[in-house]
Amino acid sequence: MNETTLNAFLSECRARIEKTLERLLPAADAPPPRLHQAMRYAVLGGGKRVRPTLAYAAARAVGMQPEKVDTAAAALEMIHVYSLIHDDLPAMDDDDLRRGRPSCHRAFDEATAILAGDALQTHAFQVLATDPKFPGDAAMRTAMIGNLARAAGSVGMAGGQALDLESEGKELDLVMLENIHIHKTGALIRSAINLGALTCPGLAAERTEALDHYAKCIGLAFQIQDDLLDVEGNTAVIGKHSGADAKHHKATYPSLMGIGPAHEAAADLVEDALKSLESFSDDANPLRWIARYIISRDR
Amino acid sequence: MNETTLNAFLSECRARIEKTLERLLPAADAPPPRLHQAMRYAVLGGGKRVRPTLAYAAARAVGMQPEKVDTAAAALEMIHVYSLIHDDLPAMDDDDLRRGRPSCHRAFDEATAILAGDALQTHAFQVLATDPKFPGDAAMRTAMIGNLARAAGSVGMAGGQALDLESEGKELDLVMLENIHIHKTGALIRSAINLGALTCPGLAAERTEALDHYAKCIGLAFQIQDDLLDVEGNTAVIGKHSGADAKHHKATYPSLMGIGPAHEAAADLVEDALKSLESFSDDANPLRWIARYIISRDR
Repeated sequence: MNETTLNAFLSECRARIEKTLERLLPAADAPPPRLHQAMRYAVLGGGKRVRPTLAYAAARAVGMQPEKVDTAAAALEMIHVYSLIHDDLPAMDDDDLRRGRPSCHRAFDEATAILAGDALQTHAFQVLATDPKFPGDAAMRTAMIGNLARAAGSVGMAGGQALDLESEGKELDLVMLENIHIHKTGALIRSAINLGALTCPGLAAERTEALDHYAKCIGLAFQIQDDLLDVEGNTAVIGKHSGADAKHHKATYPSLMGIGPAHEAAADLVEDALKSLESFSDDANPLRWIARYIISRDR
Repeated sequence: MNETTLNAFLSECRARIEKTLERLLPAADAPPPRLHQAMRYAVLGGGKRVRPTLAYAAARAVGMQPEKVDTAAAALEMIHVYSLIHDDLPAMDDDDLRRGRPSCHRAFDEATAILAGDALQTHAFQVLATDPKFPGDAAMRTAMIGNLARAAGSVGMAGGQALDLESEGKELDLVMLENIHIHKTGALIRSAINLGALTCPGLAAERTEALDHYAKCIGLAFQIQDDLLDVEGNTAVIGKHSGADAKHHKATYPSLMGIGPAHEAAADLVEDALKSLESFSDDANPLRWIARYIISRDR
C-alpha cells in the first residue's frame, strides 16, 4: 500500500466519521440548545479521530465494508470526547485548552460541560442501540454495547483516570504507570479494534485475538508517544499546552525511563503489533500504517 | 389489595433491588478500589428505589414475574444515582447532603465523584447488554438500552438538568417549569414503566400506551410533591436540607401556584394516572397504590 492509497483511506475515514457524527448528534437548535451546542462544540471541534480510524481499519482487515462500522466509530468518538470534556474539568486535570480551542467548560461553563459529557456518553450507547442505519442485528448491537461499556467504565477508561488522579504526587514505577495507561487510554483503543472486528460475524477466534494483541501494543505505544509529545512538542502543534504533565508533576514514560528509552519502548511495541498482523492480507495495511504513524506523529 | 399485601410487594421489590445491585456492582476491593467504593457508597446508601419499584410494578401489571425486570431495575437505579452524584457537585446544585449522608463529592472528592457518576452510567448500559441473568433476548436488551438511553440523555434527564440550571434566577411560568420536570425527573420515571412493560414481548400497543400515560402523570405528580416537601418537610425526614430550593431562588410549583393549588394539581394527576389503569386487572394494584403513595409521602 503506497502513501497515496493510505492517504485516500485516511481521507475516507475522516469524511465518513465527520458525516456520521453530524448525522447522529442532536441538532444545535434542538432543545435544550445550549447543551446540544456544547456537545457539538466538543465533538465536532477537530480531533485526530484515532479511535474511529482504528475501527474502520480493523473492519477492513477482516474484509468488511466501512459502512458496517460507521455507527460504532461514532459511538467510540462520543465516548472519547465525553472523557476529554470531563478530564479537562477544574476538579480533574484543569485544562483550559483542547484541540487548540478553549476546553468545553471554558467555552461554556462547568455545569454545561459536566452535562455535555454525561449526555455524550448516553448518546454513544443510544446510537448503538437504536441507529436505524446500524448494519447488524440486535446480537451485534449488544455485543458492541457490552464491549464499549466495559472499555469505558470503572475497569477501563474511567478506572484508568481514577488511578491517574490517585497517582499524582506519588512515586510511580513503570508497572504502575503502565497499569494506568492500559486502562485510561488503552481500553478504548482496544475497543475500537474489537468493534471493527465485531462487524464480521463468525470471525475466527485467532483473528480476533491477533487484532486484540495489535490493539494492546499500539494503545501503549500511543500513550508513550503522547508523553513524549508533552515533553518534546510545542503548544501550537499539539493543540494543548506542552509541559502540562511536568507542571502537574505527573509520572510519564520519559520521566521514568528517559526520552531515548521511551522512544525505543514505543518502537518495540509497534514492531510487536505488526508481528501480530503477519497472517493478515493487504487489507490490514491501514492497521500496519497506523501502527507506524503512532510513533512518527508530531501531534 | 390490602395494606399487608402491598407492604409485602414493596418489601419484595426492596429485597430484590438491593440484592441485584449488590450482585451487579463491582466489588469494593476490585481495582481501582476508591472509585468502586464511591460507586457503591452512592448506590447502596439507601434511597427510596422509586424507579426500580415502578419497573417491578409495571412488569407485574403486564403479568410478568419480578425476575424478568431485575437487571433493568438495577440499571435504572444506577442511572438515577449517577445523576444525583453529578447534580450534587459544586458546579451544579452544590449539595452537601444526600439521603441523610454526605453527598459523594463530600464523602470522597470532586474528581472521584465525577468519575463515579460517569462509571455508574456506563455500568447501567453494561449490565443491560451483558448480564448473563438477563431474562430476554438481544432484541429485548437493545429495546431496553435504547429506551433508557433516550430517557437519560440530552432530550431526557440530562437535558432537563440543563434546562433547570439555565432557569436559575429567571422568571419561569408553569409551562416552562413543567417542561423542566418532564425531562429532569419525568423521563426516567417513564422509562421505569416502559422497561417494566418491555419485559412482556408482544404486549398490546394500547397497554403500553396506557402505562406510558400513567407514567407521565405520576412523574409530574412526584415532582410537585418533591417541591412541596422542600417547602413543608424537615431535613431529618427528607434526608436533605429543606428549603434548598428557596435558598437557590428556584421556581417551584408551590412558588408559582401556591401550596394549596400545588397539592390539588398533584392529586388531579394521580387521578388521571389511576384512570389510565381502569382496564387492568388487580395485577396493576401496586401501580395504583404507588400513584396514591406519591402524594401522601412525607419524604
